Amino acid sequence: MTDLKGAIVECVPNFSEGRDPHIIRSIANEIGSIRNVKVLDIHSDSDHNRSVVTFAGRPNAVADAAVAGVRAASRLIDLNRHTGVHPRLGAADVVPLVPIRNIDMDACVALARSVAKRVWNDLGIPTYLYGEAALRKDRKRLEKVRLGGFEQLKGLVKGDPSKAPDNGGPQLHPTAGATIIGARYPLIAYNVDLGPEDLEAAKSVARNIRESNGGLPGVKALGLHLESKSCVQVSTNITRPDLTSPFQVFDKIREEAEKRGLTVLRSELVGLMPAEAAISSVRHAMLFEKFDEGRIIEFNL
Amino acid sequence: MTDLKGAIVECVPNFSEGRDPHIIRSIANEIGSIRNVKVLDIHSDSDHNRSVVTFAGRPNAVADAAVAGVRAASRLIDLNRHTGVHPRLGAADVVPLVPIRNIDMDACVALARSVAKRVWNDLGIPTYLYGEAALRKDRKRLEKVRLGGFEQLKGLVKGDPSKAPDNGGPQLHPTAGATIIGARYPLIAYNVDLGPEDLEAAKSVARNIRESNGGLPGVKALGLHLESKSCVQVSTNITRPDLTSPFQVFDKIREEAEKRGLTVLRSELVGLMPAEAAISSVRHAMLFEKFDEGRIIEFNL
Repeated sequence: MTDLKGAIVECVPNFSEGRDPHIIRSIANEIGSIRNVKVLDIHSDSDHNRSVVTFAGRPNAVADAAVAGVRAASRLIDLNRHTGVHPRLGAADVVPLVPIRNIDMDACVALARSVAKRVWNDLGIPTYLYGEAALRKDRKRLEKVRLGGFEQLKGLVKGDPSKAPDNGGPQLHPTAGATIIGARYPLIAYNVDLGPEDLEAAKSVARNIRESNGGLPGVKALGLHLESKSCVQVSTNITRPDLTSPFQVFDKIREEAEKRGLTVLRSELVGLMPAEAAISSVRHAMLFEKFDEGRIIEFNL
Repeated sequence: MTDLKGAIVECVPNFSEGRDPHIIRSIANEIGSIRNVKVLDIHSDSDHNRSVVTFAGRPNAVADAAVAGVRAASRLIDLNRHTGVHPRLGAADVVPLVPIRNIDMDACVALARSVAKRVWNDLGIPTYLYGEAALRKDRKRLEKVRLGGFEQLKGLVKGDPSKAPDNGGPQLHPTAGATIIGARYPLIAYNVDLGPEDLEAAKSVARNIRESNGGLPGVKALGLHLESKSCVQVSTNITRPDLTSPFQVFDKIREEAEKRGLTVLRSELVGLMPAEAAISSVRHAMLFEKFDEGRIIEFNL
């Protein structure tokens, strides 16, 4: 597959190691050694015993780096010796590919499926496809694919064809398990802090903005109490920033908060957002009829 | 001078020809033929008989392209045969350099001064320095330098040392006059349409937001009636987007408009804005404590 001009894909693999910094660093180094790929963030959690590496670059380079990351994880992590509260199925557990720029979801799905084939063919690790890249309806949701994780699934896959990997198998890899590879839309983790400390009001705001209650398209939301900051928070995931911009989430939270006597204290972005989400936020905040990347000097160079 | 890493400079030369599309196209082609420079916009006005070419790129390439543009204009335009309502002093009349990215004003000033020297040394066209690049206090403002334009100034420069060009002279070039070269901050032309059609209210809003009346730093504003759109407008120039973001201008106009019974209908950007202006607009609109280019995926690649 030749790379689309100017296309950028993000990849956010989850690895089943969050305690040994040398192992995490080694995996990230293998990923970062691929030309035209840049590691943007590494986040480790020792309770989960799990790390998330965020990287991005040209599509084919990202595919190479994803395979390199799975290879490194399979060499360094033995799931039989792994403990942690987070469910997991593989040393490289989940590998989502995200279209960021000049590439559509169909192309990202094709990329994810090619990565899944290579992980089985080159590394002998069975793979499942999830999200937009799922080959079976019941494998769209990650939770459904992962089931009881490595320990349960390694006994099941041989006897139950409904549990069979999409590539390879029938049994899991003895130490690396299986890797769940897929494509999804960019996800923006965005929080709004509110005062005063009224948790019930924050929960009520969250209920009113989340998609599952008829709120904003592609928005998940939770009301939380933040003891260290003496405030409450509406913590959101924006799973479809192409449908709902971060500003629209802010504006709706502010409106619902004010109805309940709460005031917006500040916003917080966890990680990064694509430029398009910032651009559409400007468009919505300032009532532009037309405003796109073509109006930003740097994007014209 | 070696180019600063990742530095981008914009240049917005004004040429004294707005009627003959071949001449304007030829000048823009000369500019665009320089490697590492891109022509972003060409705007011609036949009443003014004047064209504005917007281009940007690496600093040294922009300097080369600016000299190439002045050379082409001096070959194609004879000021003695020029008519038009806009004051002008040169075939290439004004050449402002604007720091866009990874370059500070001091470096842009140095660049403008080197362009001004080359235009005299290489092309025999005298140059004045204005804006941040002015060598004399009384030449900071463009209007002061341009005075009565080509016809008046060509008689004066020989006899009056206070009118002498900063490079070259004493007399002006017989057909190309002189070129006023300088450095300035990015200027954003941003308009907000308001309803209903109450011109006095729009003028009052404009008065209240402009810097000269104690309003927003670096903001100029006019209240206008737009007959074709059946609305009024506050038309602004944001001359210091590093001090006042476009969202802050929008927000203040909205606040002042609502006090006078007006509603914001829509926003309009004339031309382009630097990414930093969009980023700071998001920061202000969404009450982010921290939000910069580092949080945009594309700017990390």
